[in-house]
Amino acid sequence: MKPIKAGLLGLGTVGTGVVRIVEGHQEDLVMQTGSSLTIEKILVKNRSKERSITVGPDKLTEDPWEIINHEEIDVVVEVMGGIEPARTYILEALSRGKHVVTANKDLMALHGQEILAKAAENGCDVFYEASVAGGIPIIRTLVEGFASDRITKIMGIVNGTTNYILTKMSQEGASYEDVLKEAQELGYAEADPTSDVEGLDAARKMTILATLGFNVNVSLDDVSVKGISSISKEDILYAKKLGYEVKLLGIAERKDDSISVTVQPTMVNRSHPLASVNGVFNAVYVYGEAVGETMFYGPGAGELPTATSIVADLVAVAKNRNLGVSGRRVFTPYKEKKLRTAEQVDYKNFMLLHVEDEPGVLAKIAKVFAQHEVSLESVLQQPNPNNPKAELIIITHDANQASMTKVLEDFQTLDGIDRVQSVYRVEG
Amino acid sequence: MKPIKAGLLGLGTVGTGVVRIVEGHQEDLVMQTGSSLTIEKILVKNRSKERSITVGPDKLTEDPWEIINHEEIDVVVEVMGGIEPARTYILEALSRGKHVVTANKDLMALHGQEILAKAAENGCDVFYEASVAGGIPIIRTLVEGFASDRITKIMGIVNGTTNYILTKMSQEGASYEDVLKEAQELGYAEADPTSDVEGLDAARKMTILATLGFNVNVSLDDVSVKGISSISKEDILYAKKLGYEVKLLGIAERKDDSISVTVQPTMVNRSHPLASVNGVFNAVYVYGEAVGETMFYGPGAGELPTATSIVADLVAVAKNRNLGVSGRRVFTPYKEKKLRTAEQVDYKNFMLLHVEDEPGVLAKIAKVFAQHEVSLESVLQQPNPNNPKAELIIITHDANQASMTKVLEDFQTLDGIDRVQSVYRVEG
Repeated sequence: MKPIKAGLLGLGTVGTGVVRIVEGHQEDLVMQTGSSLTIEKILVKNRSKERSITVGPDKLTEDPWEIINHEEIDVVVEVMGGIEPARTYILEALSRGKHVVTANKDLMALHGQEILAKAAENGCDVFYEASVAGGIPIIRTLVEGFASDRITKIMGIVNGTTNYILTKMSQEGASYEDVLKEAQELGYAEADPTSDVEGLDAARKMTILATLGFNVNVSLDDVSVKGISSISKEDILYAKKLGYEVKLLGIAERKDDSISVTVQPTMVNRSHPLASVNGVFNAVYVYGEAVGETMFYGPGAGELPTATSIVADLVAVAKNRNLGVSGRRVFTPYKEKKLRTAEQVDYKNFMLLHVEDEPGVLAKIAKVFAQHEVSLESVLQQPNPNNPKAELIIITHDANQASMTKVLEDFQTLDGIDRVQSVYRVEG
Repeated sequence: MKPIKAGLLGLGTVGTGVVRIVEGHQEDLVMQTGSSLTIEKILVKNRSKERSITVGPDKLTEDPWEIINHEEIDVVVEVMGGIEPARTYILEALSRGKHVVTANKDLMALHGQEILAKAAENGCDVFYEASVAGGIPIIRTLVEGFASDRITKIMGIVNGTTNYILTKMSQEGASYEDVLKEAQELGYAEADPTSDVEGLDAARKMTILATLGFNVNVSLDDVSVKGISSISKEDILYAKKLGYEVKLLGIAERKDDSISVTVQPTMVNRSHPLASVNGVFNAVYVYGEAVGETMFYGPGAGELPTATSIVADLVAVAKNRNLGVSGRRVFTPYKEKKLRTAEQVDYKNFMLLHVEDEPGVLAKIAKVFAQHEVSLESVLQQPNPNNPKAELIIITHDANQASMTKVLEDFQTLDGIDRVQSVYRVEG
């Protein structure tokens, strides 16, 4: 078979990994696809920069059009990140009949439909396994492994930075600020950590997963997002005491035919498989009507894990080309989007209140819950040795979030409640 | 597109699940494959038996040849189990150009090569996702998701019966015999549990996984097997005390170019993701050179989980037929088989000894380890209140198993050792 020739847009961490795997596993790649796979050209910012791998200098270029217009390149691998110019390069490559493999979650979350439509128009493949949960082949699993099932819930720990921070806070009793600083020093968090800690990165990945899992065109605006920056040491301590771990979960749910997608800190019961996913690891829990509970666990980022997914996509591109079916296995969401707002969703809640330590307060609080038809699973009241106020911990049964909002409104003026310290979703 | 017509061989638990999913998810199946999927004929032992689903009586047949020779049937789904007559039916169906989907691990472990060769000869697809770990799409993951990587280790909890028994023993401190009896009453274990508890079922599944993961033609004879029937309450108690759970693990390893495949009770460190896989759940842990640690978790059996995998395979058959590429994505192991015997493998060992409680015994024992170049990670000696003998627990560093055999031989005649109660592999 004719060799497959790839052009790489970017030679950062992940791009370097792709070069290493393509070179190191050449023999296996030939056996699997029936054709050799070569990297013809690589777009870099500076050709003369020193690099950790040896690349023939004639392979490097500072001009993207040398790749996009290259007559012999079959597939463009985009590992630059960001929206522009990545989007333009990909669209131009597709319009010239080149297949695309990308690791770009931001781009796929925001412009996935445009890119997939352009691919379909030109009979090209677009694969993006590496865009969610790095080394975990979750996109293949949703599209092919569960092709026959109806998925009703996807819960993901899909951001390694926040999971590292929450794991350290849980294991060491450290504060958010201290662990974030440490994570930045170790390179696990960026100098500006906003996109990770405020849940935006996770929201982009959940947009992609929800689209694939529910066959609905989910857009980033549909995702309700809350990050981890306001989580306190105390919250985590209480969670542990009650048998929970706090995790930043992306949760996509389908009920009847309407869906909701959220990202929020969640207390996960220790017996749930997501509770023991620690450090920078990622995991995606999928609940299907027929299959029941499944979970997929692995590295969410890193040079070689992410590159593994990219090269697996290159193998798929090569197989499709060699079989003459490129662009013919296109994923098209075919269901109408019906959204359930965050308020319309039911789930269990954890609530930590500081209350006056005097008779009758609990009765008043219980009455508010009852008025809004929220029933309680457990209540724990304890004196706080450092504080004349008592601490009251409440876990509700599944409760409608509109009702929960009304409960919280009533609490603001309820005599006897000093303050509501925290409210979390509970899973597992 | 022309509809896909399936014939079912068998209408037990899993067959019933297939009928339910094909009927219940018809609309989604049409959207995904572009053609409808119907079940034309079902082979049963007794047409007049009462069933939990309603099937048109003209669909049922007691004659397999009505399916195998049926002009319009495109794909035969084999869910009868056992070697014969399933093997003959499948080979005959393939030689008539019918695709095959099977959940039969015994058949694929013993006659997989013969069946795949017959499929290739006739341009047919054979898929068998349901044969290992029921609802977990692990075969797709190994073949496609990790296509670009070199897998070096696969560890699987691939038998739900034994995992249920070990989980109960661990959680309730119950004996093997009591839990087995309970499992039999609940239908989790068969009246003759040999195939499960002696590790044969797990060995068959590991044969399939090792073949796919290492691209080597592994046969069942290559697997060294030990079951769980000799595990005592005490072993599990000690394991827990030291931070381990006892699991029946299938372990396939590659080192340099030679492989080993074993099934054996193993102490798994509690921090390892396999340690918290409980009850009838299955999980497969895959270590790849590039991707690192990953794990895939889900139901290992059951009507609907297993049927999910079968219908996902039917979707793949339909897509391939509609694209005109049936039988062209055949998996062929292309690497030469080089086996490492169980003795040539290195791993950590746990050992529980009953020894004389007197000076010098530990020194003698330590000397034996040193002579055979086995180094020790930890040693715990404690008096046994019910016994004048002391209990000595030893965990070695990675040790060659040939050396471990010599250590155990020497212990048989060593003055001061009363008996070696148990020896386990240690992982994690």
